[in-house]
Amino acid sequence: MAMIKVHGHHLSTATRLVLCCLEEKQVDYELAFVDLSAGDHKQPQYLALNPFGVVPSIQDGDLTLFESRAVIKYLATKYRGQGTELLGNNVSEQALVDQWCEVEGQSFNPPASTILFQTFVVPIKGGRTDEAVVKMNVEKVVKVLDIYEERLSKSKYLAGDFFSLADLQHLPCTEYLINGCGKGDVISSRKHVKAWWKDISSRPVEESH
Amino acid sequence: MAMIKVHGHHLSTATRLVLCCLEEKQVDYELAFVDLSAGDHKQPQYLALNPFGVVPSIQDGDLTLFESRAVIKYLATKYRGQGTELLGNNVSEQALVDQWCEVEGQSFNPPASTILFQTFVVPIKGGRTDEAVVKMNVEKVVKVLDIYEERLSKSKYLAGDFFSLADLQHLPCTEYLINGCGKGDVISSRKHVKAWWKDISSRPVEESH
Repeated sequence: MAMIKVHGHHLSTATRLVLCCLEEKQVDYELAFVDLSAGDHKQPQYLALNPFGVVPSIQDGDLTLFESRAVIKYLATKYRGQGTELLGNNVSEQALVDQWCEVEGQSFNPPASTILFQTFVVPIKGGRTDEAVVKMNVEKVVKVLDIYEERLSKSKYLAGDFFSLADLQHLPCTEYLINGCGKGDVISSRKHVKAWWKDISSRPVEESH
Repeated sequence: MAMIKVHGHHLSTATRLVLCCLEEKQVDYELAFVDLSAGDHKQPQYLALNPFGVVPSIQDGDLTLFESRAVIKYLATKYRGQGTELLGNNVSEQALVDQWCEVEGQSFNPPASTILFQTFVVPIKGGRTDEAVVKMNVEKVVKVLDIYEERLSKSKYLAGDFFSLADLQHLPCTEYLINGCGKGDVISSRKHVKAWWKDISSRPVEESH
């Protein structure tokens, strides 16, 4: 059987999310480098994989798939029983996984990725960080993390007492927030969020990155 | 067995999404009205159901769940084999359903709901529509719909030749765009999008609303 091919870029948070998931599921893969700085993601060859022109996309046999959160759901479903179980053990647990995945996608990521873009990407491209935008989005992230703090005072992970896709989805962007954007205090100033982050960011499979 | 209780508001797109799904799955439910204009969603009683203070939330026996897209995934999973099948018939089809659900949540809904807010909600609250914001977001929606047009020239529905959660997720907000915001032209000016919309917005279960 052909190996899963991931078309992506090692610095892209969405690509990293898919790679983290493949590691957790112990699935072999091949990374096809998409040169974002050369605009490869806007070329017809890549647009045939993903009409939105963003990374990553995967190919698994006949199946071409994009949207990183859908990709990891697919991997967690297809490889149930292999590597880390990431979807919970029954319909109710999976519903809570999906709920906190949606929270990440709808409430955490939009401000977090805006901070990342403004404080990390814009300067690299020679632009100037819009500090007002950063401030507004830090306030949004903090509101979400206050809710996480309350939640994580009651359960070890977001969806319950088991590591899941919901936690995994936070890894790439939060790592940048802490190590690339100097915003680690939003994590470290919250007792339960800090302990949760320490746990999920030091998982054995992470060390291979 | 106790009936599923939906805490929500009949004018909220997210509440409507959950109700549409319950109708498709032929599941009985009870609607507990959350008076948004009275601020009930920010009261401790509701925040105990959903700490984010937005509608809807559901209660199904011991399970409390929020995030409308996670709720409909739960309903489609729990009631597989009852009512309309909304997840596809195998892991690959489900992956494509998830992919287009993510497209809706990440690319279609953010601009579409901003248009809805600016042109429908703001005037009701006595405010003034920010036309520049509307224009920018119409441009974003149009880019997404151009991709849908291409996709729907090849398959009857977004995830394939079967109606799914991915199509369902577009119903409430698009209905407002057309009938509440006067933006129907973004749908009707695209041949395949127009045919798709005519199909999914005239499903038998929709008539009961």
